[in-house]
Amino acid sequence: MTAPVDVAIVGGGVIGLATAWRAAQRGLSVAVVDQSAGRGASWIAAGMLAPVTEAHYGEEALLGLNLDSAGRYPAFVAELEAASGTSVGYSTSGTLAVALDAGDRAVLAELHAYQQRLGLDSDLLSGRECRTLEPMLAPTVRAGLLVTGDHSVDPRRLTAALHTAGHRAGVRFLEQQATATTSSSVTLADGTTIAAGSVLLAAGCWTPALTGLPGRPVKGHVVRLRGAGFLQRTVRGVVRGFDVYVVPRDDGEVVIGATVEEMGFDTSVRVGCVYELLRDAHELLPGITELELVECGAGLRPGSPDNAPLVGRLADGRFVATGHYRNGILLTPVTADAVTELLAGGQLPAVMAPFSPDRVSAHGTSAAPTATQAGSMR
Amino acid sequence: MTAPVDVAIVGGGVIGLATAWRAAQRGLSVAVVDQSAGRGASWIAAGMLAPVTEAHYGEEALLGLNLDSAGRYPAFVAELEAASGTSVGYSTSGTLAVALDAGDRAVLAELHAYQQRLGLDSDLLSGRECRTLEPMLAPTVRAGLLVTGDHSVDPRRLTAALHTAGHRAGVRFLEQQATATTSSSVTLADGTTIAAGSVLLAAGCWTPALTGLPGRPVKGHVVRLRGAGFLQRTVRGVVRGFDVYVVPRDDGEVVIGATVEEMGFDTSVRVGCVYELLRDAHELLPGITELELVECGAGLRPGSPDNAPLVGRLADGRFVATGHYRNGILLTPVTADAVTELLAGGQLPAVMAPFSPDRVSAHGTSAAPTATQAGSMR
Repeated sequence: MTAPVDVAIVGGGVIGLATAWRAAQRGLSVAVVDQSAGRGASWIAAGMLAPVTEAHYGEEALLGLNLDSAGRYPAFVAELEAASGTSVGYSTSGTLAVALDAGDRAVLAELHAYQQRLGLDSDLLSGRECRTLEPMLAPTVRAGLLVTGDHSVDPRRLTAALHTAGHRAGVRFLEQQATATTSSSVTLADGTTIAAGSVLLAAGCWTPALTGLPGRPVKGHVVRLRGAGFLQRTVRGVVRGFDVYVVPRDDGEVVIGATVEEMGFDTSVRVGCVYELLRDAHELLPGITELELVECGAGLRPGSPDNAPLVGRLADGRFVATGHYRNGILLTPVTADAVTELLAGGQLPAVMAPFSPDRVSAHGTSAAPTATQAGSMR
Repeated sequence: MTAPVDVAIVGGGVIGLATAWRAAQRGLSVAVVDQSAGRGASWIAAGMLAPVTEAHYGEEALLGLNLDSAGRYPAFVAELEAASGTSVGYSTSGTLAVALDAGDRAVLAELHAYQQRLGLDSDLLSGRECRTLEPMLAPTVRAGLLVTGDHSVDPRRLTAALHTAGHRAGVRFLEQQATATTSSSVTLADGTTIAAGSVLLAAGCWTPALTGLPGRPVKGHVVRLRGAGFLQRTVRGVVRGFDVYVVPRDDGEVVIGATVEEMGFDTSVRVGCVYELLRDAHELLPGITELELVECGAGLRPGSPDNAPLVGRLADGRFVATGHYRNGILLTPVTADAVTELLAGGQLPAVMAPFSPDRVSAHGTSAAPTATQAGSMR
């Protein structure tokens, strides 16, 4: 039995770490339990903060949440960088979605019209205008949609900064697996039990096994390159029906992502997935072949029945923050703020209310009419 | 000043390590100087032992050396595995060179006829016969040449075994860079000088800088996969004019190699090279996409003006063993034996005599009429 805490958090990914930091800032005593904090999906994620270029029909509730969290990012980053003393690689240079043929161009025009109706900012560009912005683009690029509000962050630096800020705010980190949880305790692999005022499960794709909530891991491959100055902003496009994106960072890293696969808990890197990512990125940016290949990896996104997050309190009294699927990095600020409000005794804020776990049954069916499966991503 | 030795060897790749072991077996005291022994070209090499499938017109002297060394391999491996207590992953299941079109088939038939004239053993097979031997081969494979005498070894396990065997035989390993050498001393980065009866330079592509001998690094990319049972033997072919080979090991490793590039001393891994290796291997073996990708790497082969080794004594009294280009692993036994004979006061054996450094001037021109550039490999 170790000293009791106000909040015990199972899971040291971006969601768990950000919530730990926020809760500690509110004066709560916090422990984070994770065998290898920051080494799950957060370690693999490319870090796109793209509510606009990923806006899909029928997902207006989720879009609202995504935009809300994107809006929190500048202040979140400023506060976190000050608290941790480290940069998180936040880039506000925008995103350019490009079209390789007339069909793609029509899709971009339609997305542009949809964004206009929602009041989102984007500009349709000619192929020539795209190449003026990004000279490495293929001559076959026919058109583009420039979204200055879709940004990116380096998830590894974000995780490291959250860890440091949490540590400085008094968060305790327990490098162990949690073997059992109740609404007031977490038992560790070594047999220790931590008594807690509240218990939050933020274990990504492993949360369903801890809670009985529906959900599944959704595997994603990414390839990390090195090439300073290769791109000024995130470039994305649809090649052979698959979305591919290329995210540059100020430290010279360039990340190609991402596959979307239902492969269970397998995180092995497959030859075919790496090959396809390189092939598709090469189609958009032929000069990418000259860059250095640094790392190939695969991670597991926490998928939910409707691919929208599950944030709130379970019937058994435990709290949960999971199911962020492809938007975990983007949704970190709003999720941490909402969960901290709950943990401090408040209510789930209005923007998060539609994403309470109440909407799903333990049998895996969804009762939320406002957030449907994204569907367009591989 | 540390204790003097009979032989100081600069370079802890397969050539240096094997010579150290052999020299220690002959009763000589030996020191090997290398900052990171086994981490050069030996670390990246796929380990094909392929004198027959790599036989080229006009390279009969080199072919003789290659065949001689291949003939030494079984006893070399048996002795080394006994001395080290570890396996070196020696596979004698043969090599299958395949043709994807009629032109490739004609090249294989020509190579087959050439091999027959030289008395080398190989069999022309139909596409169906190839697929019976290797069911993962593409349906487009039209013909093949089976060479049961072309084997493979795991260079990393070979290096580790040589290190252990050398250590057990009394070889001293100095993990430092050599900053200067004479015929009787090696100076280390920390300022220490080792007095030696003989000094051998076996520093791969860095040997020219130490000796003034002509030579250059020839970069090669390889990709390491995991897939037990995927292939029974090495498969190679020519795709889009480039040689690609896939080497399986008994521990489940599968290695795709290799590019042949003149890029100076750069060992960074390039996106385009990995992409092309995967693409070309996929052409021969479509199912390779399902395997796990473990590692992408690049190393530097020690090239010489005629791509044949430089083994013998320099005018200044120092000994040299370098320039093994694409055949370093294959030529390890014969080189170690020949150099040890020299170091023990004997003569360069007849099979190695044509490869003395006497044939090249310090200006980089070749005087050897019997060994011309391979030319057919990318």
